[in-house]
Amino acid sequence: MRNIKVILQYEGTRYQGWQKQEGGGNTIQGRLEALLTKMCGSPVEVNGSGRTDAGVHALGQTANFHIDTDMTPEEIMRYMNEYLPEDIAVIQAQEASARFHSRLNATGKTYCYRVLNSSVPHIFDRRYVYEVPEVLDMEAMCRAADILCGTHDYKAFTSTKKGKKSTVRTVEAIIVTRVGDEIRFTFKGNGFLYHMVRIMMGTLLEVGMHKREAAQIKELLTSGRREEAGMLVPAKGLTLVEVHYS
Amino acid sequence: MRNIKVILQYEGTRYQGWQKQEGGGNTIQGRLEALLTKMCGSPVEVNGSGRTDAGVHALGQTANFHIDTDMTPEEIMRYMNEYLPEDIAVIQAQEASARFHSRLNATGKTYCYRVLNSSVPHIFDRRYVYEVPEVLDMEAMCRAADILCGTHDYKAFTSTKKGKKSTVRTVEAIIVTRVGDEIRFTFKGNGFLYHMVRIMMGTLLEVGMHKREAAQIKELLTSGRREEAGMLVPAKGLTLVEVHYS
Repeated sequence: MRNIKVILQYEGTRYQGWQKQEGGGNTIQGRLEALLTKMCGSPVEVNGSGRTDAGVHALGQTANFHIDTDMTPEEIMRYMNEYLPEDIAVIQAQEASARFHSRLNATGKTYCYRVLNSSVPHIFDRRYVYEVPEVLDMEAMCRAADILCGTHDYKAFTSTKKGKKSTVRTVEAIIVTRVGDEIRFTFKGNGFLYHMVRIMMGTLLEVGMHKREAAQIKELLTSGRREEAGMLVPAKGLTLVEVHYS
Repeated sequence: MRNIKVILQYEGTRYQGWQKQEGGGNTIQGRLEALLTKMCGSPVEVNGSGRTDAGVHALGQTANFHIDTDMTPEEIMRYMNEYLPEDIAVIQAQEASARFHSRLNATGKTYCYRVLNSSVPHIFDRRYVYEVPEVLDMEAMCRAADILCGTHDYKAFTSTKKGKKSTVRTVEAIIVTRVGDEIRFTFKGNGFLYHMVRIMMGTLLEVGMHKREAAQIKELLTSGRREEAGMLVPAKGLTLVEVHYS
């Protein structure tokens, strides 16, 4: 059996997220597995680097699957792009070592969250940005972003109910840049908890609107109280940009 | 009655073009008139700078309408953006002189046609680009574009059946630029005939694929034979960028 690694793009708008669901549901993983199973004539499982939530997009999701075929990676990619729906694409395919696993081998991820800071809608980007017309204090958000970085227990920034798994993660960088009416927040870290980027974003935006102080973030990292952190911002502004491997 | 000039953006994907149709139909003009008529309580007519075809987008369509209201242009814009569908937006509104007419006063227009020159789909731009995976000769297309410019009878480049109206137009510039996988064709002229940009595009692409010679274009401008010009390319790659006024 060969192990094929692919890099995927998708627009998450009409999907119930990455992960396939019992009894159907329109998911990215479900679509990929159905297509590859048809291509190979036997069941194929697709491992993603992680689950993206319903509505979240990907510029560079990584996945791998084991198949028995004579097709070259280039041919597999062409076949997939021919039959995948128009909002999912394979932009790279290559042979991987037998042991490569897109989730277990990932060393980090980069996400981008796009905020349209304008009262005038942007028609062409509307599916990929979250509209925040309020004045946002860039300087305060950058300060807050710096405090959020580091190795911390991010329990206050996840929707996961108390479990046994560690909620400690390392956020290497949060870069905040303004391009015209748009503010882009780029998050790089070794891993992100369920809803973590979107709750960090809600917290940063509340700092930007002066609804909370940047300094408060330190307390959140200590207390771990989800109810004291910011709101969960909409999925549509979030894009998985890249999965890192060593 | 006040005369309000607006600049509009829209994604043409799900519309049957600009112009309202007898017996309904989903059109940009129809949507705008329905909304303004509701806002004013009496029928409002909206003049566009020109009709865009079904599927064609606009970054800067200009329109004007006469209304009787106390609202400021800013308030009109906000009202419209609140009630317009998410694929139509007003990005500017201002008081115009009583005689301003967005079509009759227009001195020129700029259109952009986007070609994705890659066999790998671009998920996020798929509604705005035409995919041409074939190798395209940039140099030949630039030469052909130069020949297409000037003041000519563009009869070979329109789908209009023979009528009494002049088919002479002035194309000031056709600029061809490559940005990564994308080739952008920008057309600037004093006016464009029905389907003119899309037939010029089809002809330029056939030159790029070496299916015809750049020099042949001179003959087309002389003969006026539509059947000898290139194919009509899909509407989705076309965007009305700006309407010019003196």
